[in-house]
Formats: sequence, structure tokens, C-alpha cells
Amino acid sequence: METLSTARAHGGTQGLYRHASTATGTDMDFAVYVPDHSPGARLPVVTYLSGLTCTPANVVEKGEYRAACAALGLIFVAPDTSPRGPGVPDDPAGAYDFGLGAGFYLDATEAPYRGPYAMRRYIAEELPALIASAFPADATRQSIMGHSMGGHGALTLALAAPGRYRAVSAFAPIVAPSRVPWGEKAFTGYLGLDRAAWRRHDAVAMIEDGARLPALLVDQGDADPFLAEQLRPELLRQACAAAGIDLTLRLQPGYDHSYYFISTFMPDHLRWHAARLAD
Amino acid sequence: METLSTARAHGGTQGLYRHASTATGTDMDFAVYVPDHSPGARLPVVTYLSGLTCTPANVVEKGEYRAACAALGLIFVAPDTSPRGPGVPDDPAGAYDFGLGAGFYLDATEAPYRGPYAMRRYIAEELPALIASAFPADATRQSIMGHSMGGHGALTLALAAPGRYRAVSAFAPIVAPSRVPWGEKAFTGYLGLDRAAWRRHDAVAMIEDGARLPALLVDQGDADPFLAEQLRPELLRQACAAAGIDLTLRLQPGYDHSYYFISTFMPDHLRWHAARLAD
Repeated sequence: METLSTARAHGGTQGLYRHASTATGTDMDFAVYVPDHSPGARLPVVTYLSGLTCTPANVVEKGEYRAACAALGLIFVAPDTSPRGPGVPDDPAGAYDFGLGAGFYLDATEAPYRGPYAMRRYIAEELPALIASAFPADATRQSIMGHSMGGHGALTLALAAPGRYRAVSAFAPIVAPSRVPWGEKAFTGYLGLDRAAWRRHDAVAMIEDGARLPALLVDQGDADPFLAEQLRPELLRQACAAAGIDLTLRLQPGYDHSYYFISTFMPDHLRWHAARLAD
Repeated sequence: METLSTARAHGGTQGLYRHASTATGTDMDFAVYVPDHSPGARLPVVTYLSGLTCTPANVVEKGEYRAACAALGLIFVAPDTSPRGPGVPDDPAGAYDFGLGAGFYLDATEAPYRGPYAMRRYIAEELPALIASAFPADATRQSIMGHSMGGHGALTLALAAPGRYRAVSAFAPIVAPSRVPWGEKAFTGYLGLDRAAWRRHDAVAMIEDGARLPALLVDQGDADPFLAEQLRPELLRQACAAAGIDLTLRLQPGYDHSYYFISTFMPDHLRWHAARLAD
């Protein structure tokens, strides 16, 4: 693991790191904020999954999470949104919503994406092991959150691994990718045309098929331009109601899809995570 | 005045605006955050002056001021750091520390900068009048703060206009530009070779020459790479001690010159301003 940069912030250390990933076969960058802590302490870890087009830099610069993480004693990990680098296939047309910056947190099964696009394995397995070995992290206390495509990632990774994440939340998540244009494009490209395979990567379908979470916090701006076509939180509400999942879904008046929205509610989410990550 | 963008954030509105400045003869962009407020309320205004190379976007994205401004009821104004646009002369070599992005918050007297480089007049007079007319601002309750070159701007504008700003603070300010390389280059270019004229734009010299402030808050990281050569806070400490100015100068261990440093101490500064801006 290579340290690209570190800076003192809110009493702790904000770092940017790079490592050679075995999951993706590429170098992967990620950001970690470690708050001030007692020598020998092991802190709980919140993993934040970013949305389409993002690198770790977006949430590091605009997410306003450090003050709350410092106050709550949380390590904050921000992975990249796809593999990158020489030989990694992109969207054939260079679109923003597929390929580089748009890995959708799944393990692709279709050529040419199968191989490097192994983001679920990377986020769920490889990166947490690295964090546990290189930072003062308590691997038994993990949680996950994300924005938009990253909200989809947080929901699906948590639904796929009961008990791994003690808390799950999302900002404006894609909740039913099989049924919206962003997801249909991505799943066709990464998973192929068999829609039965898509259901294992679609939060609403996973819940319909029996996957469960104890509780879930979702914030959604009602001025989000992607609300009606791509996000459709009502589908998550229906699925959670039918499954008896304790969903807190807050429609936030006037908020859009940007980091102005995310940063406003970030401290709320981190408090919600911290309460569930306490010893 | 043209609205370039607005977004809801922390219960208020973050906007980016453009207007044709009579002071500079150019279009100028600026950012304003207005917190949620009662109808008809007039709120105090904090003006934040950015450092070398910045536009308003830097502090808007990285400054982490909105939560505190929302809690304290402060309007936050972020002007640009120089005139820009067709015909505005830049550093002949395109350096980062002179010309575009480096106006030093003074009114240049030397050709070809005299004219568009009228940043003191712009910040002290034209922009506050526009803010008072277009936003729910109480023009009688203003304060000023800044970072690095913007800290120089905040100190010198406040020292030059006793009573105009109810509070003044700075992050890692250039306190004695006449005696450091950044300032010597800028003052030579904007003000010419007569060092007597420089003293009216140098905070330490202004204090030595009799200018006064009631109180001053300065944070400075001790891992700031510009500390010893460009910033020299000890000169401000000596000048304030000799003049009886109530300076709170905090050397912050491990902090650098970046927005990681600024954002850490931004809430402290805003509370300090709010206490002095109360009715």
C-alpha cells in the first residue's frame, strides 16, 4: 500500500492511498479518515460508496464527514467507483454511466468487463481486510453507506451478507436498478441479458426474494432531477413494508442530487451508524 | 446580477452569482450562502477572502462553513481573488502568485494592472452594496475573514476602515507582505517600487503606523510549508503586542496550509464572528 497524501483534519488524519488489488487486477485508490484516538484503540469503520463519475476525491472534498467522524470516533473509508488504468475496458461510447467511474459494485460476468470489474468482491472482501491490517480498525464493527449508484452498492452488499454490516444507509440510492435506465444499461453490460441474474444485484428484488436488513436509513431530495426516472424510492418503501424491514425514508424538501444534499444529512447518517457500531 | 446556480444546503441556499463590476470593469463571480431565516429578517454578513489561485468554488466545496452559518444565522459571502476575462492582464510568465487569481485585495496603481485590479474597492465598497440590495443582509453587521492572501486582505481591509467590520479573523494570513517574497512580487507589480506606498497594504506596517483593531483571531498550522518564509505570524504577534491589540494567535500542531486546516477551524471562527455580530 502506497500513501499518496495525508493531511491533519479535525484532529485526525485524512489520507489518500493506492494499492495493487487482486480482485480487480489493477491499482486502486481509496481515501481513509482516521480520527484522533487512544493508542491501541480499534475504531469502527464506515465505508462510503460514491456515485456515478466519482473518485474518492468527491466525498473527501465535499462530503463534510470529518467533523462528525471525529466526534463519534469513526473511521471513514471511501473507495473508488470502478477499476481504472491501462487495459480496463470503458463504455464503448465513453458515457458517464457505464465503465470507468460506474462499476455498480458488482462482479461482472460479461466480457470484456469480467475480470477487472470485480467491485463487489473488492469492496466486501479485499478492501476491508486491507483496512483492518493497515489502520486502527475494528473489523467486527463495520457499516456501509452510499450515494446514488453507491446507495445501490450499500444496500445490495448489505443484503447479500447478513450480519457483515451493523448499519446501512443511503443518500438518493438507486433502489431497483433492474427497472430504471441506469441499471438496465449497466446490468446488460456487466451481467448480460438474463434478468434472473440481475435480481441478485437489485435491492428491491433481493428483498422480494427474501433478503433482509434489520433497519435502513434513506434520505432523498424531492428536487432531485433523477428521482422519478432513476431512483424511485417508493419501490423500496413497498418492498420494505411487505418484508417488515424497518425503513426510515425521509423526503427532504428542496434538496437535489448533489453533495450539497449529501453534506447536509451526512452528520445525521454518521450518528445513526455510530449508534449501531457502539460496542 | 445573474444567478449561475443555487442549491439547498443545510436548510439554506448556496448560490453562485455573476455581476458586471464597476470597480474592476469586468464580470465578477461570487458565492453567497443564506441560511434559513424568518421572513423579513436581515442577517449579519461574513465575507471570506480566498487565497492564491482560488475562485469562490474552493471554499464553497471545501470550506465546511454552511453547517455553522446555518446554526449561527450568518450570511457567508465568497468573492473571487482577482478580476478575470478578456483584456485582464496576467502575470507575464503566467505564475500562480501574481495576476489572475492573485489580486492581493488592493487597488493597483501601476500599468497595466491599474484599472481592473481594483480589488480593495470591489470588496470593501461595491460588493457589500450589492449584497445589501440583493440578499436579506444587515449592512450594519459585517465581518471579514480570509486565508493566506485572503487573510492579508481581511486584516488590511479591516485596518483601513475602522468600524466597518465588527470582527476580523484569518487562517494562515500573509501578515507582512512587504517583507516576504509573495508580497514583494505582488506589491512591486501592483504598486511599484515606492515601499512607502506598500505600508498602506501591509497589516504589520499599518499597525506600526497606528492602525488599530479591537481584537483579532488567527489560526496557523505549524506544518504549513509557507510558515517561515511567507507567513511569519511572529511579526503580527510583535506588532499587536506593541500596539495593545488583543490578538488570539493559535499555532495548530500538525496542520498544513490546505482546506483540511481551514475547515477544521472554520466553525470556531464563525462562532467568534457571530458573537461580535449579535445585535
